[in-house]
Formats: sequence, C-alpha cells, structure tokens
Amino acid sequence: MSKKDASPRPEARLPKGLQDISAQEIRATEAMLGTIRGVFERYGFEPLDTPAIEYTDALGKFLPDQDRPNEGVFSFKDDDEQWLSLRYDLTAPLARYVAENYQTLPKPFRRYQSGFVWRNEKPGPGRFRQFMQFDADTVGAASVAADAELCMLAADTLEALGVPRGEYVVKVSNRKLLDGVMEVIGLAGDHARKLKVLRAIDKLDRLGIEGVRQLLGKGRKDESGDFTPGAELNGEDIEAVLLFTEGTGDGNSTDFFERLGKLFAEKNAATGTEGLNELVALFDLVKKANSEARILPDPSVVRGLEYYTGPVFEAELLAPIKDERGQPIRLGSVMSGGRYDGLVERFTGERVPATGISVGVSRLLFGLQRLGKFQENAAQGPVVVLVFDKDRMADYQNMAQSLRAANIRAELYLGSSGMKAQMKYADRRGAPCVVIQGGDEKARGEVQIKDLILGATLTGIEDRDEYLKRQTEAQFAVPEEDLVKAVRKVLSRHKA
Amino acid sequence: MSKKDASPRPEARLPKGLQDISAQEIRATEAMLGTIRGVFERYGFEPLDTPAIEYTDALGKFLPDQDRPNEGVFSFKDDDEQWLSLRYDLTAPLARYVAENYQTLPKPFRRYQSGFVWRNEKPGPGRFRQFMQFDADTVGAASVAADAELCMLAADTLEALGVPRGEYVVKVSNRKLLDGVMEVIGLAGDHARKLKVLRAIDKLDRLGIEGVRQLLGKGRKDESGDFTPGAELNGEDIEAVLLFTEGTGDGNSTDFFERLGKLFAEKNAATGTEGLNELVALFDLVKKANSEARILPDPSVVRGLEYYTGPVFEAELLAPIKDERGQPIRLGSVMSGGRYDGLVERFTGERVPATGISVGVSRLLFGLQRLGKFQENAAQGPVVVLVFDKDRMADYQNMAQSLRAANIRAELYLGSSGMKAQMKYADRRGAPCVVIQGGDEKARGEVQIKDLILGATLTGIEDRDEYLKRQTEAQFAVPEEDLVKAVRKVLSRHKA
Repeated sequence: MSKKDASPRPEARLPKGLQDISAQEIRATEAMLGTIRGVFERYGFEPLDTPAIEYTDALGKFLPDQDRPNEGVFSFKDDDEQWLSLRYDLTAPLARYVAENYQTLPKPFRRYQSGFVWRNEKPGPGRFRQFMQFDADTVGAASVAADAELCMLAADTLEALGVPRGEYVVKVSNRKLLDGVMEVIGLAGDHARKLKVLRAIDKLDRLGIEGVRQLLGKGRKDESGDFTPGAELNGEDIEAVLLFTEGTGDGNSTDFFERLGKLFAEKNAATGTEGLNELVALFDLVKKANSEARILPDPSVVRGLEYYTGPVFEAELLAPIKDERGQPIRLGSVMSGGRYDGLVERFTGERVPATGISVGVSRLLFGLQRLGKFQENAAQGPVVVLVFDKDRMADYQNMAQSLRAANIRAELYLGSSGMKAQMKYADRRGAPCVVIQGGDEKARGEVQIKDLILGATLTGIEDRDEYLKRQTEAQFAVPEEDLVKAVRKVLSRHKA
Repeated sequence: MSKKDASPRPEARLPKGLQDISAQEIRATEAMLGTIRGVFERYGFEPLDTPAIEYTDALGKFLPDQDRPNEGVFSFKDDDEQWLSLRYDLTAPLARYVAENYQTLPKPFRRYQSGFVWRNEKPGPGRFRQFMQFDADTVGAASVAADAELCMLAADTLEALGVPRGEYVVKVSNRKLLDGVMEVIGLAGDHARKLKVLRAIDKLDRLGIEGVRQLLGKGRKDESGDFTPGAELNGEDIEAVLLFTEGTGDGNSTDFFERLGKLFAEKNAATGTEGLNELVALFDLVKKANSEARILPDPSVVRGLEYYTGPVFEAELLAPIKDERGQPIRLGSVMSGGRYDGLVERFTGERVPATGISVGVSRLLFGLQRLGKFQENAAQGPVVVLVFDKDRMADYQNMAQSLRAANIRAELYLGSSGMKAQMKYADRRGAPCVVIQGGDEKARGEVQIKDLILGATLTGIEDRDEYLKRQTEAQFAVPEEDLVKAVRKVLSRHKA
C-alpha cells in the first residue's frame, strides 16, 4: 500500500467559527448591500478594494515583545520571513493605503469599502471568525461638517433600507466630553482609575443608575455574590459623572449642553469645553438639515476609548426586536463610527484628520429581517424541464434554452431518477412550474405545463367544480411553439 | 522612552503580489459580475458562499510526509494546533461542502460562487497572490447534457457580455481521447513518458507542429541552444499523436471523429472509444441547440491532466487583442472547466459525478476592456458644493442634502482650502458641475452653477459670440429653490 493510500480520509467539516452562507442569505445580503452602496455613492464616496492580506506591522497589531503577532489576528510568515496577517477590520488597511498614496489622493479623500474581515477569537452564538464590514471614511477633513454628514448618511441609509424616521436613532457624543468629566473629577492623568470610570459608564444599560453609582464608588456585588471593586470616587464626583451620564434621554439637548457647559466652565475643564463646542456645532448642522429628530446627543455613547479623538456616533433600531422564540433581544448598534485623527500618524508622523462609519452587516440584516424586511429575496426557483424519455435530452434541453432566451430562469433535470423523484426535485428547487413532454404529447406536438404553486392549493378545495376548474388551470397542454407564452402566464400568476 | 515609542514607524506598503483595486476597476468588475450572475441564475444555478479559511486537509493540500502544508497555499495553525489554509480555488471548498451536506442537498446540486482565492506563489506581471474566481458547478449529474449545458452557459455568458457570436469560441475535448491515443501508442501504463507526450501537445500553440514533432521524438533544441529531451516515440506513433492533435481547426468535426474512431477501433483503444462516444453525444446536443458554430471540438484542449475525468472545455476570445503599446497578445482562455467525477470521493469514498466551469475574472475583464467593453463604468463624479464662506457650512450642506434627496450624487467640500483649490478638487473628483453661493448670490437668493465639462471646452473656441454664448451656458445663476432643476439640466447635457 502506498503512503498516499495509507492516509485516512479527511473529515468534511468547517473550522469553528466559520460558516457557509445560504442562497437565501446571500440574496438578502446582496440586496441590502446594494441599497447601502447606493446611498454611500449618492454622498460622493468612491469604492476601494484592498487585499485580505497585509503586513502585520502595517496593520498595527505586531507586539514587539512577543514572538508571534498579537492574538486576535490570523497571522503567518511570508517566504521572506516577514509576518503577514488577515485584516481584522477595513480601517487599518485604509490607513496603510492613505499613507502609501497620500501625495496622489484627492483631499479630502472619501472612500467606501465592503468586504470580509477575520478575527482569531473565540466564536459564540452569532459571533463568527469571518464576517463582513461596510465602511465609509472621509480622510483629510477636520471640519465637524464631515462628522455631521456621516450621521446623516447613517440616517438616510436606514431610511433607504425601509426603516421609517422615528424607528431608529443616531446617537452622538464626543470623546472629549468624557475627558472633560475626568478633568472635573481630577482623573485626567490617572489612566487606571479613568478606565474604571469609563467602564462603569459603559454598563449603564445593563446595571441601571444604582449599579453604576456603586461601581463609581466602593464597588458592587452582583447577584452571584462576586464583588467588582469600584473607582473610589467621592460623593460629589460620583454625582458629576452621573449628571453627565443621565444625558438627554428626552432629547432636550439644549438643557443638557447648558448644564454640562456650566460644569466645565466652573472647573476649567478645557478639553470638555472643546468637546462641547464641537458637539454644539455638529448639532447646529444637524438642526439646519431638519435632522434633529433622528440624530440625538447621547453621552452614554462610549466607543473605542483608546481610538476615537472627537465625535462618536451609533445608529440603533428602536422597534422592539424578538428572536425566533419571541423573546425580546437587545440588538445593539447597527452602524457606528467617529473621528480618529491618528489614522495615518503611525506611518508618517503627520496627524491627518479622519472620520468614518462602519455598518455591522450581519447584525443589521438580522435586525431588518426580524422587522420583516429583506425576506422576500428568496428568488423564485427555476422552471424545471422534466426528462420523460432519456433519448430525447436534446429536445428537453432546447426547451430550457428557449425559456432562458426569453429571460426566464429555467433548468433541465440532469439527474438519472424517474418522474416521481423529478417532481420532488422540482419542489425542492422551488420551481413555479415544470414542463413535461411524454410520447403522447410529442405526437400531438404539445407540451404539458404543471403549475406547482397552484397545484399545491388543490388539496384544500372541497367543492368539486371549483376543484376541477383549478385543476385545469394548474395543469394544461399547449402547442410546443407556445411554451414560452404559457410559462409566462403561469409566472404572472405568482408575481409578488 | 517607553518600549512603544522606541519601535520604528512601519512602512506603508503592500506585500508582493497583492494589489489595491481602484474605483474604476471595481465598478467595471461589478458590472461584469452582475451580467455573469444574471446568466448563471437564468441557468438555474444558486449562489453559495463558503469562508476563505478551511482546514488544510479538507482542501486536500496537506502532504503527510511534510511538516508544513504544501507550498502554494497560505497556511497557519489554529489554536488547537490544526492546520488552516486560505482557499486556493472554489472547487475544493465545494467538495467539502457537498460531502458535509450531501444528504440534505437537492440532487443534482447546482451552485455558483464568486470570491477571492489566494495562491502563495511567485507573483509576476498580471499574476497576483489574491484574485477572483467565478464558478458554476453541477454535482450529481452524470449525463453529458450537464457538460453540454456548461458549454452553452459559457457561450451565452460571453454574448451577454457583448461579445457577438463568431468573436469567441468554446473549444471542447475529452480527457479520454488522450488516454485513447496513449493506448494506441502503447503508453497507457507509462506515466512518465505519457506526461512528456501530453506536455508536448500542450505546446502546439507556441512551437507549431514541427516543434511538437521534435518533442515527441528525439527532442528539441530551442533558439537559445537549450535542449529538451523528447518522448522518444517512433515515427508511426508520432504521426498517430499528430493526427489527433491536428484536430479540427476547420470545425469539420464529423471528419475528425471518423478518423479518430477508426484509429481507436483498429487498436482496440477502449477508453478512447468511450471518450469519443461522449464527445459525439455532447455535440449532438450542441447541434440540436443550434450552437455548433460557437462550440467546437478541439483536441488541443489539454487541461488538468491529473484532475479531469471526461469532457474538458475552454472559452476564448477570437478578436485580436493588443496591449497598451499596440502589441498583439495571446490572452488564453477566459473560462474553462470540465468533468471531475472524483470531487467528493476523497471525503466519502463514494464517486459523485460533477462538472464545472470557472471564469478567469480579471483576465476576462482585461480582454473585454481591450475590446472596448466595460470601459464606460467610471461613474460620473459627484456634484461638488463649494464652500465660499466657512460660517455658512450648514447652508452648503443643505444644498448637498437636497441634491442627494433628488437622487443626485453630491458632496460638500469638506477640506479647508480656498476657492481655487476647491475648483481643482472638483476637477479631480470628475464633478460634472459645482455649486457656488457667495455673499452676493446669497443676498439675491441665488446660487451659481458651473458646468465643468462644458467649461473645459471653452478654451478651444475662437469665435467671440460663440464663446460668450457657451460661457453663459457653462456658468449661470438660478434662484435657490431651482437648484435641483438646474443641476438636472446640466447633468442631462452630459448623459452618455
């Protein structure tokens, strides 16, 4: 036995956290991406594609004190011993692209990109190691108008996807507001305690205000008895943070801005004041564009603490969403982004202003589908031409070809089973109808058309006359030359 | 200095053999793929997506006597020490998918898939380590009708892409014909010499019949003086191989089939006879579908010697194609495929008939573009609203928003430069026109529209009256509320 024969058969299986995507989901995704692309194009963004593989150091995930590149990223060595990685998002490749081509790009540079990204992380329910992102970024624009525009882009995208105004919200904050609050409570320079405070704020949704108050102070014991040490703020500082956090759930931003402005002014929190001014300027633009009902300030938006440098925003669906078992679920943000002026700096040393937004493609599609959108994209199956007589394949193939030439989705049954299995196959394929020509029909120069959708309703009919009438409609013969016309008639019965 | 600061700045560069893809090429590719998808759907194929990463052994590239997976594939270890690889084609993942889901698939199973594949090979001009494939396969259909259908699919796809009948050809052969010729010359069991003969045949296009004759005999010395040892066939066997190879350049397949049939019968070459019968059956179907002018038998199609098991086919563009410098180039096949009945066998031990076709996406696009197709896909740039007065950003943004709401591609200039640089930016962006509102226009409630395409033609006009007339058309003011109407007027001037 040769070595080759000795090797066991491999098992046909996928690595964990990876998935095959069905025809139905591909079609729904394509339809959704087409709509998103349309809106992004309308806003003047241009497509760009970068490869899946980049130098690890260019992606910024190489830790110099480790032998291997950072965990969380799929990495491997090129034949010249340099480390390569699969991209983990679309922003790091954009930074590389902009730094590499800075001189020749129109500035500001607006690009959108969609594509798969890979994370070498522990997969979980709905969490995959390969997933799709859809990003738009404006590089080289320091103006807050660029941020305001992305918020409007998010809103317009959701409306284009069929989410009416009022059933979504784009929440906006500014990283500098948080820094301002840290200035107020004297933590601006204490990175560790600062992080504790920020993480506490981030838990507002889950723990409520009392839980956050505990985490800002001595600490919190959860239901299981586990104790999380707190940030050890004093009472006054805790209230300052909570004043900030309570924010503007009611949309009354004027009041919120005033309170916060007073606080920053009193405590000489310069960064906070700067952030507030930026946020006010952003909302001036939003209001003048009649978008103040759909784009709201919300200080609880605490995103990418080490990453964003100015405005941050998140889009959320507001309609209650339930899972397959009818249980309500918190979907989280379906688009998010912000300003990150450090984008190109790590390559060039030069600070280049940039702001961007990213669509969570599968989460958004899931949300839309749970709301009853993008479900009709199961394209109708093909008309199936059955094979009654194997010696007449050419005739049957010609029937399929003539349907295709008339732009009708059609296929010839290519298996080797009998008529009963062929009918079952046609059902499996979602065929609207089948075409049959046995010897008798051939002799008469006719073909049989069988409407499977109408046919399926026959069993429910009790009235005999009605049954016979419908049966005649569901299965009928036409002259060969009328095949296309007859199939068109059946298809028109079942148009959505 | 901290460790982090000490690390040098990474260079912004791409690994060799990888490329960024421009907006223009993305748009052309998308348009082409959309057309291909349409034809494949019409033929009843359903989309499927598999992930980029598979188990190396499932892809079939793991060599058990080596520590590392086969060269030519990007591979890396998962955290459980199993080898993973990036897919190098779309067929190996299909095999894994079919083997994994065999019980639940409709049979025959027809799927198409498009996506990137990766090869860890030495890149060259036009040869990248990441490229796109577009495949259609029919699994579970032993009938030669399935192969004939893929040939017609190839032909219909090229016609849908704008290549008229007569300017392309789908060349078809059958792997078993070659085996038959080997039987005739007594080489069926001599793998090494068989490979030499096959490689010689494969060089017919480049070396001509004399060169191939030498390679089949003693050997051949090329212009540089290098000597390639031959297959050492005797004179009679050489002529038998050449008889086969000359084939049917004239499309007279009947004559060719007769000669070959006689040869196989005389020498009792059973596999050859079987292949010939399959080929004849395929062309019966092709002829009855009136496709004999576009699908031709061509025994010089020698594909995937170790891989295909029956019919093989290749589609080629016939119109002469020149490179950027006007030099004629041989493009090679733009689609190719064949029957490979061993697809699933390596997983299950069960032989499952399968046949497929693969589009060489970038080669096909290149060929079509050299023939003047898919070049018009540089979408018109956005209308650019210029920023005359930075304090009035909100007004300008509203203009951009009102154009977008009217489904016009528009953007607000988001940089910080003056009017001259803004005009230059609009040119760079390919803007059909710009919108300007300075203080005077604002006071009159007007906006200026400047048609950049018409404006560019002004310098060539010598007649003064004509110049003034055109200038008035190229730059004009309208009331603010007529902005959309006026921009629509300009856009309609420049519609293709």
